[in-house]
Amino acid sequence: MEFLNDEVLDILDRAGADVDHAARHVRFDRGLILDAVAKAPSEFTLHARNPARDVTLGGRRINFCPVASAPYCSDIDRGRRPGNFADFGDLLRIAQSLNIMHAFSGYPVEPIDLPPETRHLDCYRAFVTLTDRVWHPYGLGRARAADGIEIACLARGIDRERLKAEPGVITVINSNSPLRFDGPMLEGLMEMARAGQPVIVTPFTLAGAMSPATLAGALAQQNAEALAGIALIQILRPGCPAVYGGFTSNVDMKTGAPAFGTPEYAKAALAGGQLARRYGLPYRSSNANASNVADAQAAYESEMSIWSAVMGHANWVLHGAGWLEGGLTASFEKMILDAEMLQMMAAFLDPVAVDDDSLGLEAIAEVGPGGHFFGTAHTLARYETAFYEPIVSDWRNFETWEDGGGLDATQRANAIWKQILADYEPPPLDPAIAEAIDDFVARRKRETSPTAA
Amino acid sequence: MEFLNDEVLDILDRAGADVDHAARHVRFDRGLILDAVAKAPSEFTLHARNPARDVTLGGRRINFCPVASAPYCSDIDRGRRPGNFADFGDLLRIAQSLNIMHAFSGYPVEPIDLPPETRHLDCYRAFVTLTDRVWHPYGLGRARAADGIEIACLARGIDRERLKAEPGVITVINSNSPLRFDGPMLEGLMEMARAGQPVIVTPFTLAGAMSPATLAGALAQQNAEALAGIALIQILRPGCPAVYGGFTSNVDMKTGAPAFGTPEYAKAALAGGQLARRYGLPYRSSNANASNVADAQAAYESEMSIWSAVMGHANWVLHGAGWLEGGLTASFEKMILDAEMLQMMAAFLDPVAVDDDSLGLEAIAEVGPGGHFFGTAHTLARYETAFYEPIVSDWRNFETWEDGGGLDATQRANAIWKQILADYEPPPLDPAIAEAIDDFVARRKRETSPTAA
Repeated sequence: MEFLNDEVLDILDRAGADVDHAARHVRFDRGLILDAVAKAPSEFTLHARNPARDVTLGGRRINFCPVASAPYCSDIDRGRRPGNFADFGDLLRIAQSLNIMHAFSGYPVEPIDLPPETRHLDCYRAFVTLTDRVWHPYGLGRARAADGIEIACLARGIDRERLKAEPGVITVINSNSPLRFDGPMLEGLMEMARAGQPVIVTPFTLAGAMSPATLAGALAQQNAEALAGIALIQILRPGCPAVYGGFTSNVDMKTGAPAFGTPEYAKAALAGGQLARRYGLPYRSSNANASNVADAQAAYESEMSIWSAVMGHANWVLHGAGWLEGGLTASFEKMILDAEMLQMMAAFLDPVAVDDDSLGLEAIAEVGPGGHFFGTAHTLARYETAFYEPIVSDWRNFETWEDGGGLDATQRANAIWKQILADYEPPPLDPAIAEAIDDFVARRKRETSPTAA
Repeated sequence: MEFLNDEVLDILDRAGADVDHAARHVRFDRGLILDAVAKAPSEFTLHARNPARDVTLGGRRINFCPVASAPYCSDIDRGRRPGNFADFGDLLRIAQSLNIMHAFSGYPVEPIDLPPETRHLDCYRAFVTLTDRVWHPYGLGRARAADGIEIACLARGIDRERLKAEPGVITVINSNSPLRFDGPMLEGLMEMARAGQPVIVTPFTLAGAMSPATLAGALAQQNAEALAGIALIQILRPGCPAVYGGFTSNVDMKTGAPAFGTPEYAKAALAGGQLARRYGLPYRSSNANASNVADAQAAYESEMSIWSAVMGHANWVLHGAGWLEGGLTASFEKMILDAEMLQMMAAFLDPVAVDDDSLGLEAIAEVGPGGHFFGTAHTLARYETAFYEPIVSDWRNFETWEDGGGLDATQRANAIWKQILADYEPPPLDPAIAEAIDDFVARRKRETSPTAA
């Protein structure tokens, strides 16, 4: 593995790895990796500024997060456009309003209308004012992580020691596959690990491009890269929470275009979960697809991703709602369609009650051959909560649906996100905390970029 | 259970059931049901007129069949229209051209432009001339089943004894839930069972309407009805192949509208498979959805159905391609979208090769940190067959896709089915056999409806 950071090379050297400082290459003994990885907890809790939004990573818990890091955003009225801070805020407001979004794990869209040096300060302030959930500072460079840690403390009114004991932010470090961690990512990783905040280490192993054109090869490489990153975290701070990230998919071998939600992607997502459990680590997967619009392809590729994330026992499903175009676009309509798909999966995972009352043998005897159950006491007692109620799905018959405008699911999703934005109210925040965050953001903007303040 | 056929009541009476002839109600002893059901084979082969198309039902085999029995059909050019024989033929031609369609299990659309008394003769002739796969005569009345059995013999050039030994057609018998088998269905069941041809017994247990508003209750009722039908088949002809059909879903409790591909549907499909395996019976499930158009809802509800059919170990997936509107419409575009989804699932089920060659450790070492795998010998040796190649999915980047017309998946599916029809060639059929079938159809038309001949 290549580590493009001299401090990391020194740390790994002292920890017993075989380091070639000139080439910045590191070889790890199997025992060194396994001993370090074994120090990571198999389960941990992330604390939100609203304790009702705390989330647990590990075991049987599944957390869904919205799309992250898209450079574009789109909706069917305004089309596709570069990411900007107004859309960033609206996507936060929508996700905050969807119960199935358990946490944020990145900017839903990159607000490129803000200056890059101080953009993160505006974004972090938006996370802690527009939402009350766990969120995600970026790990690209030390300052972005450090500012996130500071704002996480301010938002919860706690100090760094308390934040170490009760972590509240999480970031993703991608290896630059194959076999490389770049300098800024390693700075972010160190900053987060030293503050006791969890890092998801996700190799970007597209089979046929950044890894071999076989699932076995891509997974072997994913595993090596993920474990190397997690071992480094444990060497920096033994016991620091960390997450095994799987993102293996394949490219279209004719064009080199990345593909997601493919059969190969689904198999890799399952195998990634098996590997994470082998090492006793929480597991991160995604809801990915490669469609250019929120259409049937977007839905079926997403379902392949969602089912394989759930069947793979993923604890953290990044890009859970809103992702299109292999992650290049955050779609407002897709966010609603995904929320429906995720809610359906959550309802699917609810156990089936089986007891005398639910078996309803008396109701069956009462109705008898050829009857119906609409008016029975058994039905009346439970009809309001008997079944999952959809937000997008339209089950009216064709004629009624046509008379109602004949809108497809994407058009209905459009109306839903608009209503959500119209109904949105920010979650309560102590004005003193809001002011402290404003002061911090203003000060850091002055320090970072005097002309921007 | 109510059995609306006096011959069946006599047979069940003689077999030891508790029969109330006046009410036409039958009570079965648990042992009577279990002893009878135990005589059904857990696995059997259905023989097509082209032996390469033989299919096995049971064990780990999954067979996908196109949509059946829709009264309407639709495509995005011509809209929704009543079923007719021209569309019937085109849907057969498309399904015959799709490798993932393993067999036919019903008319893809009901050709209501043909006279109802002789419609089945034209349809059966179409099955054995336009396709070379296993097919499905209707079991609504004795004659429809008997004519199907005769045409199945003619198409394969075999007699009835050989057909008994090597069955080649299959039908579905639905109970009129709750707890009723109607007269014509029972006639068809008897005709098929006596000819040794398999019957799928599928209760239509929509929770909240034809069964209790609980999954446990709906499944208990499904199980009772399915086992009653399968026991009757075994009493008529011990060892006759039979299939446990599961079709439990729920209605929208606010409107009574049927819903499919819901979380409840998916759980019922899994539990149905568990029940079928408990009794050692092959299992039938479906690819169902309630959308009015081939949109994202159609795709995500179908994926819920497909995943739960596959996870439930279904051996026969009816309505596998083309179903919309809870089965009221056979959609040309949806047939293509479903074929893609089913092919993806088949590729997903392909085991992952793991050996020294596929692990590709040498290729990883050769490429090294920061490189890419596009031109390596390991990639070049396998790029043509490395990954699933889609038929509908478009993985081009947004700009290229937009320049190419910016078509969504449903629009692309439209072009695909048109190309399939343009390329279609009927599978070879011995002219003497074709003539014998024509003669039979002409004779039966004269007998059934002299004016139609």
